[in-house]
Amino acid sequence: MELSTRQKKIIEIVRRDEPISGDNIAKQLGLTKPTLRNDLSLLTMTGILDARPKVGYIYSGQTIEPLLFEELFHQKVAEIMVPPVFIKQTTSISDAITDLFMHDTGSLYVIHEVTGEFVGLLSRKDLLRASINNQNITGTPVAMIMTRMPNIVTITPDERIIDAGYLIVHQEVDSLPVVESANSTKVIGKVSKSKLLTHFISSGYEVEKNKEK
Amino acid sequence: MELSTRQKKIIEIVRRDEPISGDNIAKQLGLTKPTLRNDLSLLTMTGILDARPKVGYIYSGQTIEPLLFEELFHQKVAEIMVPPVFIKQTTSISDAITDLFMHDTGSLYVIHEVTGEFVGLLSRKDLLRASINNQNITGTPVAMIMTRMPNIVTITPDERIIDAGYLIVHQEVDSLPVVESANSTKVIGKVSKSKLLTHFISSGYEVEKNKEK
Repeated sequence: MELSTRQKKIIEIVRRDEPISGDNIAKQLGLTKPTLRNDLSLLTMTGILDARPKVGYIYSGQTIEPLLFEELFHQKVAEIMVPPVFIKQTTSISDAITDLFMHDTGSLYVIHEVTGEFVGLLSRKDLLRASINNQNITGTPVAMIMTRMPNIVTITPDERIIDAGYLIVHQEVDSLPVVESANSTKVIGKVSKSKLLTHFISSGYEVEKNKEK
Repeated sequence: MELSTRQKKIIEIVRRDEPISGDNIAKQLGLTKPTLRNDLSLLTMTGILDARPKVGYIYSGQTIEPLLFEELFHQKVAEIMVPPVFIKQTTSISDAITDLFMHDTGSLYVIHEVTGEFVGLLSRKDLLRASINNQNITGTPVAMIMTRMPNIVTITPDERIIDAGYLIVHQEVDSLPVVESANSTKVIGKVSKSKLLTHFISSGYEVEKNKEK
């Protein structure tokens, strides 16, 4: 079911001020009660709201599937991005591996040692490959083995979670750098496979918990 | 919205036989049309079905959120598990790393070289740690560095996707071995972070595609 903007506003008001009469909902929206009749009856019939005589409307919370799709897939990347771990491109491979373990992260973002510009990315797989191929991981800078811009897929904070997930799945990468805007190389965050999965699973659990109430 | 079993059956019938009259739906269910009146009006009001005068009920396909939750979270682990890559515990660490790259996988499942029993698990992280700590990765068997049973969290094929996701997120592992039954160590599959994410994203895309129709 696609809820209209007005229906979503009604739900918000009821969640905040329950129990609340239809008259008061109308007042908050600057509308008349008859205007809201269809919206209120749909929200009640679908079980999203509960109408109690002489009490008012209550948010039932048992039936949030209509909102779930939006929450799961259409929230912005900005809502779930995390701070990346940055290292300089002059860092040795062995120091980078230490950083990876110290920060318990799956990828390292590499910046230019002078300009601070984002220049590359290192995954656990890149480091594993280097550690068995290279004779001298303490003397080789990560610049030698990292994946470089512009061969890195990025995303912007205003894109949707489903777009980030699509890129991660289809480009077979562990994370996406979040850049300020489409043509910028200023990295302001990271969306990882783990973070996306945590988002889906915790949203799912939230729904289940509400159902049990 | 929670759809009742009868409402779900009605949707199934309409999807298969659309356009179909209310009388014919009732006949297929062995019920009378008045019995179905409330169900049909709810399904129409929520936009799941479209009622066209003199034509019948049509599945609108625009509004499958009520079913989405089940599909996303309550399918069985069996539906999304993949075959693991098995290696013997006598395999050297360097051969194991080669196997990891050859099969392009994130984890290796380790079996006993004689009994074939599942004895341990190796992640990319385990192999990376070993490759920088160990002087002799060609001469050391993976048995020395793997995570061993019973310290491995497993799941059964009849558990739900949300349970697998919960364990992966909260135990901070990359995959779960799927064992035949709760007390068995017979591994019949693997549920990975990547596979779960692919499941969520492709289900989300499926819904979006249907909405565009």
